[in-house]
Amino acid sequence: MCEPLVVGVDFGTLSGRAVVVRVSDGAELGTAVSEYPHGVVDRALPVTGEPLPPDWALQVPSDYVGVLRTAVPAALRDAGADPADVVGLGTDFTACTVVPTTVDGTPLCELPEFEREPHAYVKLWRHHAAQPQADRITELARARDEKWLPRYGGRISSEWEFAKALQVLEEAPAVYAATAHWVELADWIVWQLTGNYVRNACTAGYKGILQDGEYPGADFLRELNPGFADFVPDKLDRPLGRLGDRAGSLTAEAAAWTGLREGIAVAVGNVDAHVTAPAALAVEPGRMVAIMGTSTCHVLNAEELRAVPGMCGVVDGGIVPGLWGYEAGQSGVGDIFGWFAEHGVPPAYHEDARRAGVSLHEHLTTLAAGQEIGAHGLVALDWHSGNRSVLVDHELSGVVVGQTLATRAEDTYRALLEATAFGTRTIIEAFRDACVPVTELVVAGGLVRNAFLMQLYADVVNLPLSVIGSAQGPAVGSALHAAVAAGAHPDITAASRAMGSVHRDVYRPVPANVRAYDELYADYRELHDHFGRGGSDVLHRLAARRHAAASAGERTVLTCR
Amino acid sequence: MCEPLVVGVDFGTLSGRAVVVRVSDGAELGTAVSEYPHGVVDRALPVTGEPLPPDWALQVPSDYVGVLRTAVPAALRDAGADPADVVGLGTDFTACTVVPTTVDGTPLCELPEFEREPHAYVKLWRHHAAQPQADRITELARARDEKWLPRYGGRISSEWEFAKALQVLEEAPAVYAATAHWVELADWIVWQLTGNYVRNACTAGYKGILQDGEYPGADFLRELNPGFADFVPDKLDRPLGRLGDRAGSLTAEAAAWTGLREGIAVAVGNVDAHVTAPAALAVEPGRMVAIMGTSTCHVLNAEELRAVPGMCGVVDGGIVPGLWGYEAGQSGVGDIFGWFAEHGVPPAYHEDARRAGVSLHEHLTTLAAGQEIGAHGLVALDWHSGNRSVLVDHELSGVVVGQTLATRAEDTYRALLEATAFGTRTIIEAFRDACVPVTELVVAGGLVRNAFLMQLYADVVNLPLSVIGSAQGPAVGSALHAAVAAGAHPDITAASRAMGSVHRDVYRPVPANVRAYDELYADYRELHDHFGRGGSDVLHRLAARRHAAASAGERTVLTCR
Repeated sequence: MCEPLVVGVDFGTLSGRAVVVRVSDGAELGTAVSEYPHGVVDRALPVTGEPLPPDWALQVPSDYVGVLRTAVPAALRDAGADPADVVGLGTDFTACTVVPTTVDGTPLCELPEFEREPHAYVKLWRHHAAQPQADRITELARARDEKWLPRYGGRISSEWEFAKALQVLEEAPAVYAATAHWVELADWIVWQLTGNYVRNACTAGYKGILQDGEYPGADFLRELNPGFADFVPDKLDRPLGRLGDRAGSLTAEAAAWTGLREGIAVAVGNVDAHVTAPAALAVEPGRMVAIMGTSTCHVLNAEELRAVPGMCGVVDGGIVPGLWGYEAGQSGVGDIFGWFAEHGVPPAYHEDARRAGVSLHEHLTTLAAGQEIGAHGLVALDWHSGNRSVLVDHELSGVVVGQTLATRAEDTYRALLEATAFGTRTIIEAFRDACVPVTELVVAGGLVRNAFLMQLYADVVNLPLSVIGSAQGPAVGSALHAAVAAGAHPDITAASRAMGSVHRDVYRPVPANVRAYDELYADYRELHDHFGRGGSDVLHRLAARRHAAASAGERTVLTCR
Repeated sequence: MCEPLVVGVDFGTLSGRAVVVRVSDGAELGTAVSEYPHGVVDRALPVTGEPLPPDWALQVPSDYVGVLRTAVPAALRDAGADPADVVGLGTDFTACTVVPTTVDGTPLCELPEFEREPHAYVKLWRHHAAQPQADRITELARARDEKWLPRYGGRISSEWEFAKALQVLEEAPAVYAATAHWVELADWIVWQLTGNYVRNACTAGYKGILQDGEYPGADFLRELNPGFADFVPDKLDRPLGRLGDRAGSLTAEAAAWTGLREGIAVAVGNVDAHVTAPAALAVEPGRMVAIMGTSTCHVLNAEELRAVPGMCGVVDGGIVPGLWGYEAGQSGVGDIFGWFAEHGVPPAYHEDARRAGVSLHEHLTTLAAGQEIGAHGLVALDWHSGNRSVLVDHELSGVVVGQTLATRAEDTYRALLEATAFGTRTIIEAFRDACVPVTELVVAGGLVRNAFLMQLYADVVNLPLSVIGSAQGPAVGSALHAAVAAGAHPDITAASRAMGSVHRDVYRPVPANVRAYDELYADYRELHDHFGRGGSDVLHRLAARRHAAASAGERTVLTCR
């Protein structure tokens, strides 16, 4: 045995990625990706072809096992690693992604009697059809003044465990009755690897409303639906595993799937965004990690518990044991830029980009970057996918203000880039207003490659921007947790120092830009509060009409989780 | 001599059009167009190449004479008409388009000492560089509570005679001193044809602030600028000619230019929009004519004088003698659609349109027309060129509200079509609120060819839509005035009945659509009042930043006149 290695596996929305990492210094030795054969099931059930209603999003659990069978061995080969050197395995998952199982963890959809039943499948994080249930949970919690509600910014998401479970109870009682466990996939995959069902502290807190050791009580649940009263003891409750702890040992079966040694340490499950923080050397209080892709997720540790209006959640030990982990999010970021590039840019720009051998995004960015701040005369609201934080309202929509006959595609593109930066600033200010300090923004995710966007964010939020050192932050974060679970590092913070990587202060705010953006941000906030906080209800009326007229194929998706 | 004929000549922004029309029934026998060699001079002066500041727009007077020399003979040839049969000539012009002249009507720019002086040229209607002067006129009139101010909706435009003249006084005093007459081109062209300088009642009222027989007084003008006190008696005042009256007889020189007989009747000058009303059989009170092109101009007769907030003006006999003629306008309509088609539509739409052999506008219209009302979830403000009526604020700009990742180009296109219809409805409601009845909308101009747009307007304004029978409404209207001037019809109303043409009630409101648009219109009005009436000043702040950052080439243009 040369140097100890660990494997991290990141289960994303469309594929899983495995990475082989050296314990001592975090060096990434090999990686491999495996796509889910069924992808996202949001049109029709695979077995029957039965069409699904709008806002549904399912997955097929065997696809995840496929990643263990293919991506892990491929990553080992890519690394040229001897499996004997691998001392631990860690995983992270999208969340809240849940499945009903039997007592032994078999997903109900794998039983012949339920294979034609949509509610027996995995409900992906972006399944939004439990919105009515979520609304009832929020309303009842408000009416009863439940003390856990402020921990979630005052609103419970349709994406989370209780809303999705209540939907099953009310729409498919037979499935609900047959459910022994309502399992986060973050824990289900660890169960497959170890034979142990350990509930991780992260999803239990952020998605399962576990606060101060308690779930919502039986009284509360009975008031939602009498049949829901015993949901927690019957189907949800489970001993917790702290992040970085060892959930168990790799079974012989899972060793055969992965090519790893039987008996190595398997870490407690975790969530993709949260696991990125230690990979980016950003577990210290005040360092906000923004994972910027189609949407942005923000995670941040703090010493103190505070109620931040509109945050996604705050969980004790939700990112690392011993600190309060805060989460917030922007439901649309890169997907807004992508939507505009695809649907709002005339042919000449496409041709010019092709001729210059750059992507359309690069071309638009170059044109936009040449402008003085404010020259385009625009300000936009970045709510094309609704607003997760701080308004927590996915019926909001995008707004562009200030168009003239001289407005060009690069002007609007830049206004949209700016709008997402203003959205991030709004979140940071909400944290600060609640006395949760934010002193640095650490960025990860695909959008870090756009240097103009990064400088724009630094100028808008008036904070130095650090950039994660790895292009596969979540998988590396999972590997780091595996090292802790294997005892190779004493805790996550120590593992982060040894194995994480970050380029510190790559982008620094330019004072003149900060001042100019302060003015534009004031305009953004005025529109934000007008359209989002009751000045005008027009966005809701427009959404209601859109829904009324919509065909089944159209939907609004809230992508923050 | 067979049947008596008349010739109408419409002097537009880029070209002049002559039409030969039969007096008895308005049959259009021939037509010809002649472009102005110098077009719109808005970049550099032709003689010197000297660059012009932003917002300037000049023309060269000899270009107009060129139309008389080329288009009139060509129209006669096209008609196969014997010039001996032509009994009268009528003209209409853009307005306010003005030029400083000597005592004999020679434009100062044609004198060698002034040919290098931009202020000596024709100031086209869309010359907007006199905005500071216009603002001072409006402010002083408000402060002094001048009784004529409400006749112009409460604001004097930078396009009009006094603002443009004051700019000359203040920026080119030598030109001002040399100016014997400050002449509307509508009257200058008649002067060239007849040797008589007759000031027409239409431009004197709408553009010259002539109300109840009086111009703004010397006290008022002195307070603006001491040198301006005697502007009216020195340079502006002139006996008025009623519309349809004979201004004089065709001179030998003008007969030689045009190929017409010396001595035939020449009608008093007129304005393109206003002259269209009788051509569209719409001089009766309550029939609002909308000339819909890049912008829309609305003209309407009424028995009573009322103050309509935000109208362009109301003039006694401004359209036909004996009625109060009202004018309003939308500064951006077709040019907004054109801007979007050029700058906001992705390549696939262009390809699909090409493949289908239709224009991009036709393709977008077809896609948009297939939607249910409200399905796109959008509402827009049609202020991309500012707002002429009823807000009278050209620093406003366009707004689009309700975008999602599912928004497609045809959705935004339809929202922009709807926004302009809502703009028209806002104007109609302003008239009704002021007790000026509007019972029918008669449409003319290039946009009448879009049947979907026309039905949409009928549904939004909840009025039957009639369509002018001629594709060259202004030129036919001028011919009709020529027939009155020649005594072939007793007055404009009688001539309109004989020679005008309209397809009555081509589009009728569909009750279900009317109800659905009522809801969307309420949203439009909420945004209209929020962004346009003080709820938010963000559009002005954005415009100020845009102007501050703008290069000389960028500008905002107010196109309603």
